[in-house]
Amino acid sequence: MITVLSGGTGTPKLLQGIKEIVDPEELTIIVNTLENDYFSGVYVSADIDTVLYTMADMINEEVWYGVKDDTFITHERLEEIGCAELLRIGDIDRATKIQKTQLIEKYGLKKACEIQSDKMGIKADIIPMSEENSDIKIVTDIGELEFHDFLIKHRSEPVVEDLKFSKVNPAEGVIEAINNSCAVIIGPSNPITSISPILSLEGVREALKNTHVIAVSPIIGSDAVSGPASKFMKALGIEVSSVGVADLYKDFLDTIVIDDKDSQLKSQLNQIVNKVIITNTHKLL
Amino acid sequence: MITVLSGGTGTPKLLQGIKEIVDPEELTIIVNTLENDYFSGVYVSADIDTVLYTMADMINEEVWYGVKDDTFITHERLEEIGCAELLRIGDIDRATKIQKTQLIEKYGLKKACEIQSDKMGIKADIIPMSEENSDIKIVTDIGELEFHDFLIKHRSEPVVEDLKFSKVNPAEGVIEAINNSCAVIIGPSNPITSISPILSLEGVREALKNTHVIAVSPIIGSDAVSGPASKFMKALGIEVSSVGVADLYKDFLDTIVIDDKDSQLKSQLNQIVNKVIITNTHKLL
Repeated sequence: MITVLSGGTGTPKLLQGIKEIVDPEELTIIVNTLENDYFSGVYVSADIDTVLYTMADMINEEVWYGVKDDTFITHERLEEIGCAELLRIGDIDRATKIQKTQLIEKYGLKKACEIQSDKMGIKADIIPMSEENSDIKIVTDIGELEFHDFLIKHRSEPVVEDLKFSKVNPAEGVIEAINNSCAVIIGPSNPITSISPILSLEGVREALKNTHVIAVSPIIGSDAVSGPASKFMKALGIEVSSVGVADLYKDFLDTIVIDDKDSQLKSQLNQIVNKVIITNTHKLL
Repeated sequence: MITVLSGGTGTPKLLQGIKEIVDPEELTIIVNTLENDYFSGVYVSADIDTVLYTMADMINEEVWYGVKDDTFITHERLEEIGCAELLRIGDIDRATKIQKTQLIEKYGLKKACEIQSDKMGIKADIIPMSEENSDIKIVTDIGELEFHDFLIKHRSEPVVEDLKFSKVNPAEGVIEAINNSCAVIIGPSNPITSISPILSLEGVREALKNTHVIAVSPIIGSDAVSGPASKFMKALGIEVSSVGVADLYKDFLDTIVIDDKDSQLKSQLNQIVNKVIITNTHKLL
């Protein structure tokens, strides 16, 4: 059994590869739910939907969210009538979100994901990190912002000072998946807003200490390959480099995968982790 | 000022004509809200939307609900993933419903209609009969059914025994519109499920007594021209004919418009109302 910890932007591309080489029946993906919230009356779990679409070969590979070749008829009409949506939701994608909203009311998020995953013909287990709302706020130089307001309305431009989110409990199956895995892969998602929320769940760091953990670094040089990762790392006083990433995960990390542009970091990283794999991660990211 | 009392199926076609001859600034349409309810997470006020689309020249004239040339991408996808919608909601139509749901939460239904009507460039006043939920149930030989379950899931097939709905208050402007009108036109909608709910509002029948009221009969011979009107009339022991319709409205009705196929009813109708207009209503219906 292999478990992957996933956010939205960085990890799905890695999953595209993993799903070709790992028996999907032996694969569990634990997905960040930090920024899940209601928009236009539907529950949006952006990272989960991205993972679902990736595993179902439906993902829009240009932006890594939403459905390939989707239309935006409702979205565009909403804008026309003065009710613009913060998130760009396509017509096929909206069906996923309408269904998930209804399923959550009946069964909770975990079971909702299971039903949707089955319907899309996905054999791997996709588990939300939690059934609970994280109530995230980004503290910035222009005040406290909702996550998507920061990301989309303000295009990640304000200076990040801190990140606040409520402590939530792991969904059923999260700790068990880690305990039952011979290896856990931490995908190249934002270490602060995508991976740390999973690590902060009760029991996750402890469980990770007892299995082989491989992290793919989302940083090349001092730049995050996608999303505002470097901004958040800086705000929290973390070095923006693969060393900073390894440091965040050091109490349980065995192997780190970095880009060959960063090969000079090997000896420094070897003081933190057992093994450093140097490869062309920039192709992945 | 002219006021029209409207349901969904019968009256919009009449409105298409009225809006060509009455100055829209002098026109108020009071719309039935009996069957308003939430579907797929959005508030559906079918009759109001039909009136909005009719007045904005957007109505689908084949079925007299929804938007002309609309697509059904989300609707069809929902069916595909095992979450079929009871109502067939198009992609453009869904935007109207998403917006109305949000506007209702903020402002209530009346103001929501006003904002949407303005956005669609409609000059007439479109007022919901009430801001409150009517909580309607159809009592049938197979048990109590929700209105749309009866109409769509059971295709109006069960034998109707009774109709129950809660007493609601008129929206602001309903009584005033009638009081300020030189004539009130009752459209050829279902007298039981579309018009009676409006008439049952506190003060409406009293106000109608003080103005000239013209009803266009929705019955030709002993058949309702659209929808299950005859079924409901029978259930409540009302004669299924224009005479039965006139009888329902007799305490305030001045003029009834009937189809020329029913000209033999003239003398009988003249015992109930002052004036009988015989014309080709079947073209209208």
